[in-house]
This record gives sequence, C-alpha cells and structure tokens, in this order.
Amino acid sequence: MKIYDVPGFPNPLRVRIALAEKGLTDQVEFVKVDLLGGEHKEDAFLAKNPSGTVPVLELEDGVYISECTAITEYVDHLDGKPALTGATPRDKAVIHMMQKRAEAELIDAVADYFHYATPGLGPKIEDGKKTVWTGRDAFGRKQGDRAVAGMRYFDQILRDQPYVAGDQFSMADITVLGGLVFAGFAKLDVPEDCTALSAWRTRVQERPSVKAA
Amino acid sequence: MKIYDVPGFPNPLRVRIALAEKGLTDQVEFVKVDLLGGEHKEDAFLAKNPSGTVPVLELEDGVYISECTAITEYVDHLDGKPALTGATPRDKAVIHMMQKRAEAELIDAVADYFHYATPGLGPKIEDGKKTVWTGRDAFGRKQGDRAVAGMRYFDQILRDQPYVAGDQFSMADITVLGGLVFAGFAKLDVPEDCTALSAWRTRVQERPSVKAA
Ligand SMILES: N[C@@H](CCC(=O)N[C@@H](CS)C(=O)NCC(=O)O)C(=O)O
Ligand SMILES: N[C@@H](CCC(=O)N[C@@H](CS)C(=O)NCC(=O)O)C(=O)O
Repeated sequence: MKIYDVPGFPNPLRVRIALAEKGLTDQVEFVKVDLLGGEHKEDAFLAKNPSGTVPVLELEDGVYISECTAITEYVDHLDGKPALTGATPRDKAVIHMMQKRAEAELIDAVADYFHYATPGLGPKIEDGKKTVWTGRDAFGRKQGDRAVAGMRYFDQILRDQPYVAGDQFSMADITVLGGLVFAGFAKLDVPEDCTALSAWRTRVQERPSVKAA
Repeated sequence: MKIYDVPGFPNPLRVRIALAEKGLTDQVEFVKVDLLGGEHKEDAFLAKNPSGTVPVLELEDGVYISECTAITEYVDHLDGKPALTGATPRDKAVIHMMQKRAEAELIDAVADYFHYATPGLGPKIEDGKKTVWTGRDAFGRKQGDRAVAGMRYFDQILRDQPYVAGDQFSMADITVLGGLVFAGFAKLDVPEDCTALSAWRTRVQERPSVKAA
C-alpha cells in the first residue's frame, strides 16, 4: 500500500493512527505531498482524489481511496477482525454515528475555520483553486463557534463513558483527536471547563499507536 | 425498530430505500416528525439527535442512531450479509469513499443551497434555531455551484460504470439518488448534458426498493 499525505497534518494523522492500531504501518510506503506548494490542487493529484485533499491510499491494483473513513474501513477489515469500526451491527452504527458527528461538529468545522477565518495555508492555496466568495470570513467564524460547541458536546459524552463511542477505543476517538490536533494548529482553544475531554485526550495520547503516529 | 422521519424527504428516503433493499421495511414502526413545525429543533428531539435532523433510528434497547450512513451500516449487517456497504475490505473502501463524496459534493451541498440560498423550510426554522450570519446567501449559492459540479462528477463516473461505486448497486447510489431528489425539491436543475447520470437515475428508479420507498 502507498499513502500520499503530509506527516503531522490532522487528517493524515487519523489514518496513521488507524494503521498503527492495526500493526500495519510498516506495510505502507508514505509519499509526501507538497501541500504548502499547492500540489494537491494540481491535475496529477486531482486525478487521484478529485476533492484535492490528503490522505489518499493507493491499492496494489492502482485504485485510489480517499477519505479517512474509507481508508480506515479498508485497513480495519484486512485481517477480518474489525477493531476500530465495530464488529456487530450495533457497534458499527454507534461508531459511524459518532465518527460522523466528530467530523461535522469538530474536525471539518475546525478546517472551515482554519481555511476561511484565518490565513489558512496562505493565499496561493486558499484563493487559488478554491472559490473566493463574499462572506467566507463570517462562514469560517460560524464554523469556529460550531467546533467549540462540538468540543462541549464531546466533553459531555466523555463524562459518562471512557471513549467517544462507548467502552472501546474506535475510529470515532481518532476523529475527535484529529479535530483537537487541528484546533491546536488553528489556535482554537478547548474551553478550560471541558475537563472530561482533556482527561480523555491525555489518556488517548498515551496509546502506543498515537505516540507512534 | 422505530424510525423518526418525514416521508418523502430526501435523507429519510435514503434509509427507506436501504430498508427496502434488505427486506426490513415491515419490521419498522415509522414515527412522523413535524419538521415544518420545527419539532426537530425542540429539546425532546435534540435529546434523540443533537444535530436536529431526521432520520433517527431507535433500537430496542432505547439507543438512538442518527446519520443515514450509520443507520445503513446497521440494517445492512443485521443478516450478516452486507449488500449495500461492501463485503470485502476493498468494496467497503470504495463504497464509503463514493458515499462520502456523494454527501460532500452533492446531497449536503444541495441542503446548504436549500437552507441558505432559498427560503428553505421557512423563517421559523431557518432563522430560529440556526445561527443567522452575514454571507449565508453567498455560502448557499457557492454550495449550489458545488452541487452542480458534483452532478457533473457523478455523470463522468457513470459513463464508465453502471453504479456509483462500480458494478453493484450500493449505499453510494442511494446517496446520489437522495441528492438528486433533494436538488429537484430545491429547484436546482441537473445539467441537460449529464446524460449518463440521467440514464442511471431512470434505471435506479425502476428498482423495487426505490419504487416502494
Ligand atoms: N474528509 C477528508 C478531509 C481531508 C482533508 O481535508 N485533509 C487536509 C489535510 S489535514 C487537506 O488535504 N487540506 C488541503 C486543503 O484543504 O487545501 C478525509 O477524511 O480525508
Ligand atoms: N447527514 C444527515 C443529514 C440529515 C438531514 O439533514 N435531514 C434533513 C431532512 S432531509 C433534516 O432533518 N433537515 C432539517 C433541518 O435542517 O432543519 C444524515 O445522513 O442523516
């Protein structure tokens, strides 16, 4: 397997944690994409992923898989023992629901804040291939507020259970962690009273997969 | 199982098609939510789904599952024979990728256009519980353009293969169909030259599950 990404970036991190959880990291060749130079918005990369984002997984047969959820489904099922995406119908449902909530209410909201309400990756990328539209600052700030509300939501959840989707670490935890890493990057603070969320983060960061990623 | 939804609405349709594909429709009790009256933004409903959207599935043990993808994962795995979400790691990956693309580039973009660039569900709902922000019309229009670009993308895909994720009908087709139904609702036209997309739609609408839903 080949993965096109940028080490240290929040969405790539999600897949790197998933790979480490499954013990698959050393089976992957990582290819660095020049995100700051805008390589991900050039035709060669858009042919791999029309959404123009990293990470992208290339399978042996040349098929490209984008989206962290899709890549995680793949790596989690290779050994026939899904551990991150749920083994029963009920677990799959809860994990996919919480994962999607973590995307919509946290990591994707932080990304919108970063790209639209701050200089983001710089004018070459933000103004180049993306549509410039009036009101994008206001949209970015609204999404920043949404991300902070998302942090408060996950804090509440983590007051009652050890992990985002229940008793087990899952893909939903990975997405929330990616969201908090991205928030740090975008200088969007976790509210101080989100103590359950902060304690969970400290605990999750002790996992070997997260340390290695 | 109980499902809280509104018959005829695009996201509820996604789950109703999935249920019909799996022969599970008659095992579900449907509870109608008064979306036009704003019931989905009241506390009782937000306790079921903090995102304030339909559909929501209630399991026998009282757990609530929101998000069409999560509900589809559940119903697709109940018989141990996943037919809509992929049976192999590779199929799961491609289906989840195309499904997410169909959400981001089509159905969710149409929804943003509908809610922000048109009167949507009316001022009570659009201005009530949602944040009003300057620039939301421009955001809505930008998302409308994105949805039309999404139609063109899926048209290209369907020139080369019979279904959105390859040779088999899947959750990704259901999401694209929901997106086109929503686009009709929002008066966002499919470009006339998207002939492969239109032919696919005609074909998919002949499926018993789609006719029944
Ligand atoms: N939903 C996507 C998000 C991917 C994403 O946005 N990645 C960021 C890096 S953390 C990116 O490529 N950003 C480039 C840009 O937006 O220009 C996924 O799950 O892979
Ligand atoms: N991503 C959600 C989308 C659900 C959704 O937006 N449903 C619409 C009905 S088609 C809704 O509840 N809209 C109410 C509103 O936005 O106020 C899912 O997959 O269930």
